[in-house]
Amino acid sequence: MKIIIDAMGGDHAPDEILKGAFDAVREYGVELIIVGDEKQITHLSNVNSFDLTQHRVVHTDVVVNMDDDPMVVLHAKKESSLCTGLRLLAAGEGDAFVSAANTGALFTAASLIVRKIPGVQRAAIASILPMTPPVLLLDSGANVTVTEDYLEQFAVMGNAYMKSVHAIERPRVGLLNNGSEACKGTQLQIDTYKRLESNGKINFVGNIEANNIPFDACDVLVTDGFSGNITLKAIEGMGKMMLSTLKNCFYTNIRTKTAAVLINEEIRQIKRDFDPSEYGGAPLLGLRKPVIKAHGSSKAKAIKSAIRQAKDYAVTGVADEIANDIKKMIDARHEQVDNAAVMEEIK
Amino acid sequence: MKIIIDAMGGDHAPDEILKGAFDAVREYGVELIIVGDEKQITHLSNVNSFDLTQHRVVHTDVVVNMDDDPMVVLHAKKESSLCTGLRLLAAGEGDAFVSAANTGALFTAASLIVRKIPGVQRAAIASILPMTPPVLLLDSGANVTVTEDYLEQFAVMGNAYMKSVHAIERPRVGLLNNGSEACKGTQLQIDTYKRLESNGKINFVGNIEANNIPFDACDVLVTDGFSGNITLKAIEGMGKMMLSTLKNCFYTNIRTKTAAVLINEEIRQIKRDFDPSEYGGAPLLGLRKPVIKAHGSSKAKAIKSAIRQAKDYAVTGVADEIANDIKKMIDARHEQVDNAAVMEEIK
Repeated sequence: MKIIIDAMGGDHAPDEILKGAFDAVREYGVELIIVGDEKQITHLSNVNSFDLTQHRVVHTDVVVNMDDDPMVVLHAKKESSLCTGLRLLAAGEGDAFVSAANTGALFTAASLIVRKIPGVQRAAIASILPMTPPVLLLDSGANVTVTEDYLEQFAVMGNAYMKSVHAIERPRVGLLNNGSEACKGTQLQIDTYKRLESNGKINFVGNIEANNIPFDACDVLVTDGFSGNITLKAIEGMGKMMLSTLKNCFYTNIRTKTAAVLINEEIRQIKRDFDPSEYGGAPLLGLRKPVIKAHGSSKAKAIKSAIRQAKDYAVTGVADEIANDIKKMIDARHEQVDNAAVMEEIK
Repeated sequence: MKIIIDAMGGDHAPDEILKGAFDAVREYGVELIIVGDEKQITHLSNVNSFDLTQHRVVHTDVVVNMDDDPMVVLHAKKESSLCTGLRLLAAGEGDAFVSAANTGALFTAASLIVRKIPGVQRAAIASILPMTPPVLLLDSGANVTVTEDYLEQFAVMGNAYMKSVHAIERPRVGLLNNGSEACKGTQLQIDTYKRLESNGKINFVGNIEANNIPFDACDVLVTDGFSGNITLKAIEGMGKMMLSTLKNCFYTNIRTKTAAVLINEEIRQIKRDFDPSEYGGAPLLGLRKPVIKAHGSSKAKAIKSAIRQAKDYAVTGVADEIANDIKKMIDARHEQVDNAAVMEEIK
């Protein structure tokens, strides 16, 4: 299993990216193609006693910044570690690509360089929400404006991912909405509800209200990228706020500090449960090959988790599953249209 | 101060509604107009040793159910406690109306019976998010499809409410979005950003990402009713989940139970901070008179808080403030249009 890693993307590149990648090699036995500044990569490998001879380094000193416009990246930064890594993936030199670079640039470049699976209208960014069990939310920010066609495809793609990577036999697919009834939401949700309900290949469990997300309401949660992004961030912000409130409350006085010592182990577990770096990155779904977006603020642990996730994505063949499912869905729709035409003629 | 209370709305009506109302009388010295089934109201007053002679009871035995269609309520349930209470408010018999009935029915009936302030395009449901300091989120569910005109008015209305009721001199008004840059979001957010930026009467602080909501990013958060509802519920669900996780962790074993005893006081404070019933209900803004929507699951404490809020809403004259601000905004826009026409003629 060869993982291509963008050594230069993210707030803590290249140090933390490389540390995480080296940890992943030790833990998961993956082989690396490291894309980035060779001098820095060699230096950091020496400092961390990491043997580069089993891996490949592809040099480039062009770096994508966090605020670079995606279109500018595609034209003026073709030689960046981001674009170079994606080209290596597209050319079949590695099995998956991991980057903590700017989301917009990664999403746009991946859609154009790795390309979408035939029939897929828009790729999506899926996020694993830190729930028990985890919930796959898509789209979580790439497509702020969507149609019911896109959302139905997101449902099919999310279903394939949770089935393959999380080994859930019949993932429960829900539609994020402002009420449980089929008539709720804007016209988009009303139309999408009908689509998902009539799609025989997925286990649609109806509308999901956001207060039920943490309480095992579904495995895959489908929505547009605007409300998906807001949901993801509201959950992230609340988790962070509650943990900091808890911390302050333990630091109040000697009595509370004693309590903190007694319950230290359990609180650490809660912190781990809500720690995004344990969950790895966000898989981009609908592309021909596995791409994982790691959080821009990723440190070594998050990068290691993202590489584990990239490996799972590649080894389970999700992209092929998605290709199959999308093809079947399109064929079924054509058949419906054909049947309707025949019925029309008979009349 | 006369508060009209819908004794029959909500999951725990009329018992908890009346208990909460009686508590509010004791604590805030308000006078009540209680609308509902007279027999039950008299019985509950006797049971709770509440002296009805200082208050008025308006009898009706028609009740709005949680799943009643708003349009059906307006036509077939004109005599319900909900519609009767709103008519009393419109007629000036009381200063504010509180109901825990079905949101859609209350919003629709209030917009038609109490009527909107002249110039207001759509009334909004505003929710107080349980943050420190609190954040007013609007719209939080009534208007799933909006325009930049509506959103600008929501900003003006939320600004007036936080200024008057929460005594914030220059409330910071933010636009909920999926990124901080002015170009973020759908066309709606891009257009609304420009509107809010050029509105000289409000202190616009730009786009707010949902992860920053708990960290004092703004006082008023403007958005459409679809993403507002999702944000509100995601925050509610996460708060509930974190508290239940914490509770489970304290119940693990003798050691953790000891910690729980030591830190009991602080944890209770956290629970109070996140308890929606401390915050009262959601003010409906843009109506000629104060209407407060209490949560459908409200018990006595939440009803008491909602009545306190109704009193604050009425006593501070927010509705007049909103009327003034909306009028000024419309006049300023007309002036702009007139000036542009003059400039055009001069050319």
